[in-house]
Amino acid sequence: MVVIGGDAAGMSAAAQARRLSSADELDIVAFERGAFTSYSACGIPYWVAGDVGDREQLIARDPDEHRRRGIDVRTHTEITRIDTDGRRVLARARDGREEWHGYDDLVIATGAVPLRPPLPGIDAEGVHGVQNLTDGAALIDALDRLGAPAPAPGDGDSCPVGDARAPGDTRTADDARTAGRRGGGPLRAVVVGAGYIGIEMAEAMIRRGFTVTVVDQAAEPMTTLDPDMGALVREAMNGMGIETVMGDPVTEIETGDDGAVRAVRTENGRHPADLVVLGLGTRPQTELAEAAGLPLGPSGGLLTDRAMRVRGHRHVWAGGDCVEVEHRLTGDTRHIPLGTHANKHGQVIGANIAGDYATFPGVVGTAVSKVCDLEIARTGLLEREATAAGLQFVTVTVEATSRAGYYPGAEPMRVKLLAERITGRLLGAQIVGREVAAKRVDTVAVALTAGMTAADLTMLDLGYAPPFSPVWDPVQVAARKAAAAVRAEG
Amino acid sequence: MVVIGGDAAGMSAAAQARRLSSADELDIVAFERGAFTSYSACGIPYWVAGDVGDREQLIARDPDEHRRRGIDVRTHTEITRIDTDGRRVLARARDGREEWHGYDDLVIATGAVPLRPPLPGIDAEGVHGVQNLTDGAALIDALDRLGAPAPAPGDGDSCPVGDARAPGDTRTADDARTAGRRGGGPLRAVVVGAGYIGIEMAEAMIRRGFTVTVVDQAAEPMTTLDPDMGALVREAMNGMGIETVMGDPVTEIETGDDGAVRAVRTENGRHPADLVVLGLGTRPQTELAEAAGLPLGPSGGLLTDRAMRVRGHRHVWAGGDCVEVEHRLTGDTRHIPLGTHANKHGQVIGANIAGDYATFPGVVGTAVSKVCDLEIARTGLLEREATAAGLQFVTVTVEATSRAGYYPGAEPMRVKLLAERITGRLLGAQIVGREVAAKRVDTVAVALTAGMTAADLTMLDLGYAPPFSPVWDPVQVAARKAAAAVRAEG
Repeated sequence: MVVIGGDAAGMSAAAQARRLSSADELDIVAFERGAFTSYSACGIPYWVAGDVGDREQLIARDPDEHRRRGIDVRTHTEITRIDTDGRRVLARARDGREEWHGYDDLVIATGAVPLRPPLPGIDAEGVHGVQNLTDGAALIDALDRLGAPAPAPGDGDSCPVGDARAPGDTRTADDARTAGRRGGGPLRAVVVGAGYIGIEMAEAMIRRGFTVTVVDQAAEPMTTLDPDMGALVREAMNGMGIETVMGDPVTEIETGDDGAVRAVRTENGRHPADLVVLGLGTRPQTELAEAAGLPLGPSGGLLTDRAMRVRGHRHVWAGGDCVEVEHRLTGDTRHIPLGTHANKHGQVIGANIAGDYATFPGVVGTAVSKVCDLEIARTGLLEREATAAGLQFVTVTVEATSRAGYYPGAEPMRVKLLAERITGRLLGAQIVGREVAAKRVDTVAVALTAGMTAADLTMLDLGYAPPFSPVWDPVQVAARKAAAAVRAEG
Repeated sequence: MVVIGGDAAGMSAAAQARRLSSADELDIVAFERGAFTSYSACGIPYWVAGDVGDREQLIARDPDEHRRRGIDVRTHTEITRIDTDGRRVLARARDGREEWHGYDDLVIATGAVPLRPPLPGIDAEGVHGVQNLTDGAALIDALDRLGAPAPAPGDGDSCPVGDARAPGDTRTADDARTAGRRGGGPLRAVVVGAGYIGIEMAEAMIRRGFTVTVVDQAAEPMTTLDPDMGALVREAMNGMGIETVMGDPVTEIETGDDGAVRAVRTENGRHPADLVVLGLGTRPQTELAEAAGLPLGPSGGLLTDRAMRVRGHRHVWAGGDCVEVEHRLTGDTRHIPLGTHANKHGQVIGANIAGDYATFPGVVGTAVSKVCDLEIARTGLLEREATAAGLQFVTVTVEATSRAGYYPGAEPMRVKLLAERITGRLLGAQIVGREVAAKRVDTVAVALTAGMTAADLTMLDLGYAPPFSPVWDPVQVAARKAAAAVRAEG
């Protein structure tokens, strides 16, 4: 068993195969071109924010731990060719030497690459991605050099409230750079992209004491939500002192004579920056697979069957951020790079290679995130996704509270629900709120996976007690309204 | 439409029928023997604790509000007979006058009565139930008289840590009574019963500054959990300074010469008490229905069909704490008095009486509760319930964290899962933990309602981000282990 890529999917596959088969039965070699294995890329924003003390905490299992468990991990070794006919891969070691390795089963887990548009200045000093641990470390070093202190750990949900920049502060970015933290002036960060990574990095920069501007060409943040729900996120971000510049594409990263970043220019403005963070999403890293003639889907991700075997290739498997996953509501495939899927893929691949049997049944598009204390969640289909799938539907939006209204700490949340016209089948949910809002989406995720209707959801036996929920859980308040709307619509 | 009982089920039914039909089409009269309508009995422990400022907050809609919406509410009016043949009920007003009222549709929503064993001293001064608002007010008055201050509102999850009684404190209950808060001595409360109400009242008394002892004949608190999970609750309660006296039935409430309570005597001990709270559960209040010849189930609750019509009686409906509900996993009926069921019953009854159509599909036994910051949840069947239903099953228990392990505030939780032997079908879950533990049971509640297996649950697309969950949600960690156990068991 040969694994390409030492992160979640690859190493989960290796570990699961190792658990299920002895060293006599199966040799496992994993190639990783970087230095790290099995780390949590999703944790990087919280490491940058200072919530996670050091890099080691993000590493679930380092190469030596894997080796002790009988997996031959080769770090700093890049696979440069896959030869499926010859069942072998070409590995290039750190010293440049290349060597072929044969396989019985190959696992492709090459992950994704961050989108990095070819803008002027994109490679300037002070422009940071946050894709991997090396990126994270570079950003943290830059923050330290700029004198941005990490907050005390342990209060991941709290952010400074209000704009960190004093009213009437007219100093330029250069002034701020010169002054740094020493002069007490606020440092300015511009985050390019207002999706998950963008908003998480906006939080991180706020917590590091920056004045933060988030720039995106989309009309609202979080295009993984419908625009009406994205607007709630924008309003909340503004309330936290995060400036949002929406509907305004970036045209240039402006640099100074020293080659370092000064500002982000958009079609309509100029946004001074001491630091720029790119949070533009990712694409599947499949050049190697493509060169080997393996099948790619519309987003450029590898296509697999339910056993996570690459379609048409008996001995090649793939999982994690380099594949497209099947959407259980539409039947099509899409690129949804999430650690939770990658881990499941790995488990399925490892079991199958070891002669056991497991399948990955696809996803329903669940995702949760937060910016400071604002929780954001979705599952199923957005309006535009449902329409694109040929579905007709009703949408309802309700306001409800996280606990019984009279119980201390009850927080409002907005729940939007999509249900299919006529049948009432649940198609999607979006939740924006505070305090135990996001994970409520799981209830809808399970219900729509099971093919339940809005009326079914209304009558589900969910946990109720005043500290946890109103008598009707917020998702059931929405479901009641959706069921009524389906009937009214006819 | 005539409604007997002005709380959740009855008034939900009335309100829903009112919404769906005009005053010309339908007359609605609701009889309530007390003074209040539509209040949250589940909120009483938090009102006593001081988390809820006043009684009015617990009242969702008072009689005048209902009247303004076109429902003729008659408080202080008790129904003393139901004549199903004559389609009429006999109402006794406050002044003792009795009058027959005819009906086209009758809704019985008479609720439950607290269990009150015939122990010596059970009616003594200082022995309090917490079934309704009058009970709650009486207890709060007693607390005020004893000089037990309410804590500052707004911190419902925090309790004083450790035993409030100073080491070496050997004063008797009489001493404490005499000293009251003035002498700074701790007041002592004994809570009889260690179920939901008992533990919630133990929290309330702790928050009121009492030294608290909880007494129960069962071996562990929370017999709605398996004993191994109940033991976790007991350990946590002890850690909060709550004394637990388990497996020791109460024999007598000891009173002083003044007739007031002094101690609770059990088979094996004597527990000094300035105040006794009864939290022994309830039984359906169905004497009236029984006298009218309506069908009762094994727990003494009314039996209904899925439209919530009393079985065999076309014009009589029943809902809330006076009925037995169908368990979706076993098909039998049981008494599960919960406000969330009562509200659903009311909605179903009101819709059907108004000529619309709705059904209540039964329950899966979900319940959540907490004592201070310890969250407790269950859904589906306990081991003894599954066995009683003729089911064979595997059980697994796992320890997992509420957030990614590296994220601040990640708290451990214990998740126990029952899955059917051979099929792997989910049968039940129990969760004990802190910080967003309890509501995770909803995921399993939906999954087992849908007939999913442990393997299905493993692969569900649940929300993941480091502040909300590990990559494998705790219920999925348990599901993986359960799926493996099912296969290993064969």
